[in-house]
Amino acid sequence: MADYTRITLDESEIPSQWYNIVPDLPEPPPPVLHPGTHEPVGPDDLSPLFPMALIGQEVSTERYIDIPGPVMDVYKTWRATPLHRARALEKYLDTPARIYYKYEGGSPAGSHKPNTSIPQAYYNAQEGVKKLTTETGAGQWGSALALATSLFGLECEVWMVAASFEQKPYRKTMMEVWGATVHSSPSDVTEAGRKIGAENPDSPGSLGIAISEAVEAAVGDPDTKYALGSVLNHVLLHQTVIGEEALLQLAKIDEKPDLLVGCTGGGSNFAGLSFPFLREKLAGRMNPTIRCVEPAACPSLTRGEYRYDFGDMIGMTPLVKMHTLGHSFVPDPIHAGGLRYHGMAPLVSHIYELGLTEAEAIHQTECFEAAVIFARTEGILPAPEPTHAIAEAIREAKRAKETGEETVILIAVCGHGHFDLTAYESYLAGNLVDYDYPAEKVAAAMEQVPVIA
Amino acid sequence: MADYTRITLDESEIPSQWYNIVPDLPEPPPPVLHPGTHEPVGPDDLSPLFPMALIGQEVSTERYIDIPGPVMDVYKTWRATPLHRARALEKYLDTPARIYYKYEGGSPAGSHKPNTSIPQAYYNAQEGVKKLTTETGAGQWGSALALATSLFGLECEVWMVAASFEQKPYRKTMMEVWGATVHSSPSDVTEAGRKIGAENPDSPGSLGIAISEAVEAAVGDPDTKYALGSVLNHVLLHQTVIGEEALLQLAKIDEKPDLLVGCTGGGSNFAGLSFPFLREKLAGRMNPTIRCVEPAACPSLTRGEYRYDFGDMIGMTPLVKMHTLGHSFVPDPIHAGGLRYHGMAPLVSHIYELGLTEAEAIHQTECFEAAVIFARTEGILPAPEPTHAIAEAIREAKRAKETGEETVILIAVCGHGHFDLTAYESYLAGNLVDYDYPAEKVAAAMEQVPVIA
Repeated sequence: MADYTRITLDESEIPSQWYNIVPDLPEPPPPVLHPGTHEPVGPDDLSPLFPMALIGQEVSTERYIDIPGPVMDVYKTWRATPLHRARALEKYLDTPARIYYKYEGGSPAGSHKPNTSIPQAYYNAQEGVKKLTTETGAGQWGSALALATSLFGLECEVWMVAASFEQKPYRKTMMEVWGATVHSSPSDVTEAGRKIGAENPDSPGSLGIAISEAVEAAVGDPDTKYALGSVLNHVLLHQTVIGEEALLQLAKIDEKPDLLVGCTGGGSNFAGLSFPFLREKLAGRMNPTIRCVEPAACPSLTRGEYRYDFGDMIGMTPLVKMHTLGHSFVPDPIHAGGLRYHGMAPLVSHIYELGLTEAEAIHQTECFEAAVIFARTEGILPAPEPTHAIAEAIREAKRAKETGEETVILIAVCGHGHFDLTAYESYLAGNLVDYDYPAEKVAAAMEQVPVIA
Repeated sequence: MADYTRITLDESEIPSQWYNIVPDLPEPPPPVLHPGTHEPVGPDDLSPLFPMALIGQEVSTERYIDIPGPVMDVYKTWRATPLHRARALEKYLDTPARIYYKYEGGSPAGSHKPNTSIPQAYYNAQEGVKKLTTETGAGQWGSALALATSLFGLECEVWMVAASFEQKPYRKTMMEVWGATVHSSPSDVTEAGRKIGAENPDSPGSLGIAISEAVEAAVGDPDTKYALGSVLNHVLLHQTVIGEEALLQLAKIDEKPDLLVGCTGGGSNFAGLSFPFLREKLAGRMNPTIRCVEPAACPSLTRGEYRYDFGDMIGMTPLVKMHTLGHSFVPDPIHAGGLRYHGMAPLVSHIYELGLTEAEAIHQTECFEAAVIFARTEGILPAPEPTHAIAEAIREAKRAKETGEETVILIAVCGHGHFDLTAYESYLAGNLVDYDYPAEKVAAAMEQVPVIA
């Protein structure tokens, strides 16, 4: 068994429960606060946006939550995802390290996002919701939600950041094939969109604006709710199916990772792979180093402050305690659009503060250099986001070559780059720009962060 | 076991041999003829283009051919591909039919093409070849060969039809990520290209021209050979791993297909799935109807003549006996670029003449209608080519609903449509054109077909 290249699981082996890390943590995470009162929010504060089942999961202290049958039926159409041994990459690097990667790009939407869009659509449909709204940047999350709503018979309305709407027409069409209505944001169908459009007719849009539009459309209609693709506890919870599968797959070949690396933007891909391993670490059954890798242009964990801030860019959401660069901070236009977020999932932040994980920041040129090596050896063309984890794994594999250690490295490769080839084209043409840490922009944004007594 | 949604195979279960149908046929296929002498060609005639190992496979009468270890090692990075039960599609159609599909879109290049590009690159590398040349239309084959040459350390030079080069920059970049050099064809780096470019500076190119350029570049250099992605016996041979896996997967759930449908352009995807089932049928172990589905705009099997013709559009290749619309026939611009071929694989043609298979032609609007139903139920967004097989399967599932029969249908879904979303956009906008059978154009082209004594 030990020389397998690609470890699959039979569909009967797919985990039947999601793992909630909260009860296993040495300290509970800080509460979410109401933006007006600064008091902890209750379920009623969230109910205009989310169905009760998801609100329940958001605050749950149960260790395991059953995956509903209809969600499992859909998971089975692409899960379990494969765990690959990166033999050709190891050979290319001439490293004694054994490198494994868990690949989520085989989902219908091409990333890990359907792991949560499917249950979100399911629970909303169960509670009689007719339509879901959301925002999307590059389109990964929007297409995952369009897929999910299509399967559960819901309508879907997506506000796509105008710049991406123009640059990535394929992602838009993909959402439309799955039946979604896609607006370029700022749009003229919401008050927020019209207001911004009037002030700036050529606005390229931003995630902040798109969130405002999607939220406005949801709160104004009792049959409509809103869906978010990262950051929140219930989103991270749904992603843990990744790590649970990887644990089973590694056990089949009798391996334990020394190092686990995942990219962090909102945090859901990283949490999905790492939380089940963290459980094993906390229980003393293995002792991997668990490392977040973030873009040098948007380094919330390595350079941000851990304090209460808004989750969106214009200050509409509750206040969450997280590593933040300031909610009004606009990151430079790196190609890893999914990592251009000012904050970090509160749970990922809390765990980092507890000293259970590490973090590193890498420039995008090194990431694409790693991605091309990966594509030319392993065949798979990764999305810009997981190239950060691949770059860090290659650094470690080179260190292992120096020390001669047979380090076992596990990488989260959360999606393919079929819709991101302009980024590769830019890299191959030598046009990629590395952005330094924007200290002044961050300092200015941090001044906007509310001070909580 | 019988209610599985997705049947996977362990990597130890991947077939270790390709299946050659030739020795099992009631009559041997007609010989390939030299274009000048009209005598059967020998290995020496082909050796400027192909390595001896592939020439040997082209004419082999061995029933099984071992898959070399290094090819198997690469196959294992994405094979075995899943066999899906299309439960959501069945439910949508409210049919008693049980529908299965074998999905090849999970390969790194997104289609079944790497099943043959990998061994082709391997055998060439074994014989000391340094570079492979090829042509590509929409880019599926070019990217599969770029992937394969990257993995086996060969150079790769691709002539991409100019119209696609402009329209599908993502496919071009994908090939470049894998290290290939991509020319827009007609190019200025070959005599053929320069000649056509001089005559028609705005030529949108054609597969015929691109083949001429790739062949010219190969024959002029002793270290370079040429690779073809369909039509030839050895290409079909390599694809049989698809059908061998599907047989094992269906056996696991104790199913036998009543009907097998695959799209046919050059014929390799269809042959790959169907030939192993044909073996079982010829041996009396099962009795499926095996049906080719082709575009109404390019219906070589249903409307073409079975006679000797050139494989390329400008008459450089040996003469092969096949169903042809005339080698100079230029099909209308349907979106299924991979099915726009004037002829058919000689083996697929021979078997059709023997009455062992059926054929049907379908218009593209019905195909995309089927594709959108498929995407909204099964989640997978198919390439334009396999939408033909899906459309035929839906027709059959509707018939089964009328008769109440529990027909077991197996569909070949040979690739994803991530690079074909402009076709979907056109369909969703109501702009898709259905082309009638171009009787006059075919009649004119048939007059150019050589008459063999």
